[in-house]
Formats: sequence, C-alpha cells, structure tokens
Amino acid sequence: MPDPPDFSKSTCPLPLRDYPSIVMGHGGGGRLSAELVEHLFLPAFRNDALANLGDASIVASGGERLAISTDSFVVRPLIFPGGSIGELSVYGTVNDLAVSGAVPVYLSVGMILEEGLPMAILAQIVDDMAKAARVAGVQIVAGDTKVVEKGHGDGCYVNTTGIGFVPAGVNVGPGLARAGDIILINGTVGDHGMAIMSVREGLEFDTTIHSDTAALNALIADVLRAGGPSVHSMRDPTRGGVAASLNEIASSSQVGMVVDEASLPVRSEVRSACELLGMDPIHVANEGKVLIFVAPDRAEQVLEAMRRHPLGADSTMIGNAVAQHAGMVVARTTIGATRIITPQIGEQLPRIC
Amino acid sequence: MPDPPDFSKSTCPLPLRDYPSIVMGHGGGGRLSAELVEHLFLPAFRNDALANLGDASIVASGGERLAISTDSFVVRPLIFPGGSIGELSVYGTVNDLAVSGAVPVYLSVGMILEEGLPMAILAQIVDDMAKAARVAGVQIVAGDTKVVEKGHGDGCYVNTTGIGFVPAGVNVGPGLARAGDIILINGTVGDHGMAIMSVREGLEFDTTIHSDTAALNALIADVLRAGGPSVHSMRDPTRGGVAASLNEIASSSQVGMVVDEASLPVRSEVRSACELLGMDPIHVANEGKVLIFVAPDRAEQVLEAMRRHPLGADSTMIGNAVAQHAGMVVARTTIGATRIITPQIGEQLPRIC
Repeated sequence: MPDPPDFSKSTCPLPLRDYPSIVMGHGGGGRLSAELVEHLFLPAFRNDALANLGDASIVASGGERLAISTDSFVVRPLIFPGGSIGELSVYGTVNDLAVSGAVPVYLSVGMILEEGLPMAILAQIVDDMAKAARVAGVQIVAGDTKVVEKGHGDGCYVNTTGIGFVPAGVNVGPGLARAGDIILINGTVGDHGMAIMSVREGLEFDTTIHSDTAALNALIADVLRAGGPSVHSMRDPTRGGVAASLNEIASSSQVGMVVDEASLPVRSEVRSACELLGMDPIHVANEGKVLIFVAPDRAEQVLEAMRRHPLGADSTMIGNAVAQHAGMVVARTTIGATRIITPQIGEQLPRIC
Repeated sequence: MPDPPDFSKSTCPLPLRDYPSIVMGHGGGGRLSAELVEHLFLPAFRNDALANLGDASIVASGGERLAISTDSFVVRPLIFPGGSIGELSVYGTVNDLAVSGAVPVYLSVGMILEEGLPMAILAQIVDDMAKAARVAGVQIVAGDTKVVEKGHGDGCYVNTTGIGFVPAGVNVGPGLARAGDIILINGTVGDHGMAIMSVREGLEFDTTIHSDTAALNALIADVLRAGGPSVHSMRDPTRGGVAASLNEIASSSQVGMVVDEASLPVRSEVRSACELLGMDPIHVANEGKVLIFVAPDRAEQVLEAMRRHPLGADSTMIGNAVAQHAGMVVARTTIGATRIITPQIGEQLPRIC
C-alpha cells in the first residue's frame, strides 16, 4: 500500500475538508493554520474580539482597553544558541501584546511537563522565564503545571497568556496600514529560525547563529512616542517570517506592498545557512523583530528612534504599502525583476516556537 | 539491575532535590506539585499575586480588581461519559475564577495538537468549548494552535486562561476561612474521577458514571448574594479531591476542620467503583463541585440558595472549621472514630483534567 500523501509538504491550497486529520502544517502559521482558524475556530467561537485576528485581542474593561494574547510554545530543542523555551515563551507573548499597541503587564504560565524531564533543565527554563519577565517588566501572576507520561510530550511545552493595557490615543492593528505607509524593520531577519535549524541539522559555520529572541515592548514604546498616530500597524514576524506578516497585513488592510529585496538585512551566516537548506530568509522565523507601518510624515523620526534603541541599531526601511495590487506583496529583486511573495502553505520548519 | 524507585507511588514526603527528574506526581495537585511550586516556581517568579496561591490571582487594574487564572488540560481519554476536554477546559478555568469571587468574562484558548488527530474529534472538542462558553457566559477572545509530531503529544492538550472581575465588596480567598465556619458542598463527590477511571479500566456498572463537569459561576453568584461578607472561602475540589482542597484551606487559613464522613454525598455507583479500586471518594477529583466556607449566621440562607440552583439540589453541610488542630483536617467516621485526612503525595489518578 502506498504511503498516504504528505500534506505538510504540499503546495496546493486544499480546503479543510480534504484533511481527515491534523498535519504538521496546521501549526505552521501559514495558510493551513489560517484555514483551521477560518473554518473551525472562528465559526465556533465567533465574536468581534476574535474576528479581528490581531496578535492580541483588545476588549473593553471599564474605561480601559485590555489586550489579551495567548501562545503555546513547543520549540525543539528546549535550549538553543541565544535562548531557551523559557525566554521565548515570555518574549513571544510580550511582543504580541506590544505590537497590538498595548503595554504588557501580566503573564500567566501553563507548563505541560513530560515525565523524566531532568529537574536541572526545568530549573534553567524557569530561571530564563523569570529573567525574561524582569527584562520585559512584566509580572508572572498565575501558573499551572501538568505532567504527562514519558512518550506523550517532548520535555516541556509552555503556554503563556499575557494581559496589557492599550494607552489612550494608541490605535494600531493589522487592518490599519494605508497605501503610502513606509515599512520599517529593526534589524536582520531569519536569525531565530536558522539558529534552531542549525542545531537540529548539525550545521557548522564559522560563527554560531544565535536566536534574536528579545522583548520588543520598550523599542515599540519609543516607536509610538516618535510616530504618534502616524504609526498604523505593527507585527512581529515570527512563524512564517516577514513574508507571512506582510501578507497578513496586506490582506487585512487591503493594501499592496512593494519590498526592496536588497534592503532586507540578513546576516551572512544566516544567508549561507538558508542557501544550504534551500530556504528564503523572508520566510524564516524571527523572535526579536518588528515590522512597522508608518505614514511618511513621521517615518524618519520613527527610524531614528528605533536606531537609538539597543534592539534597533540596524533598523532600516524595507519597502512601502501601495494602492495597487491590494492584498498582494511584491518584491523587487536585486536584478530589478519583481516576484510575488506568498505565505507558505504549511511551514518550512516545524516547531520553531 | 533493579528498576529505579517509582516516586510517584511513594508515600514518603521527599524534598525536591531528591527528584533528579519530573515524575507523574509532580502534576497531581498533591504534595509533590506543591513542592515544585514552593521550591521552584515561587522563588523564581516571586510576587504578591502569585504568593497568594489562590485558584486565580487578583491584581489591581485602574479602579477594578482583575482575576487571572490559567490551567492546562491533559485529560485522557479526550472524550468521556458526561463531557470532553473541550467542556472541561472551559468550565475548569471559569470555576477557578468564580471560586476566587470573580465574575468570569474572557477566556483564551491555546491548543497543542498531535499530528494525526482526526479532524472530526478536533471539531467536536471545539464545538464543546463553544457550547460551554455560551453556558458559562464567557467569551473566547484569543487563541493559538501548535502542532507536534505524532508520538510527541496525546491527541490534544488545551490551555485556557481566564480573566474576570471581582465585584466591589467581595473578599474571599483560601486564607480567609475562620474557626466556626460551616462547610457546604453542592452535591456528590468523586463523579468526575470515577467517570474517567471507569473508562480507562473498562469497568462496567449498572449505571454509567458521568463526569460532573459544569460551570459553577451562576451557582456561586447565588451563594455570594445569599451569604454576602459571611462567605469567607470557596474552592472547587478538582485534582486531589475534597481532601486536597480542605487541607489547602486549613493550611492557608490556619484553622482546623472536622468533617462528618457520613454526610459526604457519594453516588452508590461511585462508591462501588472506589471500593473496587481501593480509592477513597474524598480524594477523587470533581469538576462541578464547590466547597463553601460560610459563617453560621448566613449558612442556612446560603444552603437554601444552593439547593434552589439546578447544580445544587443535593447541597449539604459536611462539617465545620474549628480553632483546634490548626492546619489539620479530621474526619469523624460512621462508627464514631476520627481519622486525619491528609492530601495525597502524588496523585491516585494521573491526567484526570
């Protein structure tokens, strides 16, 4: 009997009913993930806050706007160059709140541990979480631990759920980018994905590739101070990389985008690793990067503010939003041609976060 | 070579350093879970909200008090008589907020799916969550899905994190029970644990044992209306059962407790199953029960209010808090003797929720 088809590597966008069971791609943050959300979760849970599909949901609470974001982390290996699942799980949720315009304040932590996980590894992960929470200025106020039998987990899965408050006057969202907006990024792309991949594949380069995992809330506060209401949209390009994030904003905001491929900062060792593995850095995950959509009137001030921040020294403009080809992202290649940047259907790298 | 000792079945309270790795008991909600919290999580994450160790953390937000609670669900099997991981994950977090005095409002859902999970099962779980959210009157406002490879999960793990608001004037907590308080419960104990156990062990009785999984927030609102400030403490006796919850409150409030064993309501089929398996219903998990500590002046009104609610028809008094033997729970047996009710060290039934 032939093997069943491997849908996770398929490039054909099949509707949900053609998947009798879950495939890896359903967790990849690409088109399969989106189909699960669109055809299963949204119809079941339908409400306005969820339908917005931002990195965090914004809900009213008395006179305030509360931002809520949840993320489960299943990264493999648990500890990697530049970080661990501990930092990643704190920074990931902090960043999802921050790009929604919220000031992150509280985190909950839910851990699913596998029987046999060495206590020393758990202790390091917990220590990394505590340090990361201090760096990001958030409090871990609720926790839960469950244990599953050996062979029913993978050491440690972490869920973090974050709560923040959106200051008065801040209005950013995936649907608020406008034609004419300048697209900025705070540094090199692909570092996190290639750090994980290098470890898994046993690749060796002259320089070890380190994950860029970092808390972006302080940098984003600077961006909002410098840009005010001219900052329209922000997104941290994690799963699916810059390509996925740009496509999501292009689709939600119904604008086109033109990206200058040569302007996308990529470390030479990341570029080498990508070439070796046949990957494109624009599709590779980041954990300390943010895309900013800002009107031209404040783009210069925002870029300067970003460059003054330690996490934004390499900040640069990578393109702009346009009125043409709404919902579509186009790259100008180094030789002057153009190509369409589509999101991945599944994921090129499972369990990146 | 002899097998390594099975600490999960040990009855000797060893300190954390004697466990080089995680054992099943660390997730059981008993003494081993408490040691992990005390020796690992609390020192790392130390803050006042967490140190309170309630079912939910209460934090200030503007003029309001926000309650935050997180819980991961790893129940096996995913679907069982009376419910599924879907309802359980919604009601579990709703109840943790409610027993903290909060009105549950928002939920986030983080799912970790195993490659190969049949889409039809996922659809049923999601449907159960949506229905449960409607029953409980909460909105699911944020979600996340990750997928792990076949053999690295167990179909579906769910984290829910809930946010609620504590109304002005409500002050309940695990440390606020007082000597003299009457202890009430809203019905039979052990139903959930024995429903799960019967399925796993293939036990057959004349009557199928159904889980009691239910949203307790409406019943608890009635309790608070009837009891006002005389309601001091509430807890839903899930993992570790009534024994664990009473011990936690006895310890936090530094009161003793005397429970009349004959007054603890137990279904006959649950009692039979417990006898067959050598378990004590007082240690078995519930998912739709709440223990209420109320001063004598309002106990009668609270009990009447509970009995008027569909989830409280079998409500009854099971004992009271006393000034003697602070931190210790004592049961009066049917033959008039007394015995000390201690929490389990690990868990008698892994992955019950």
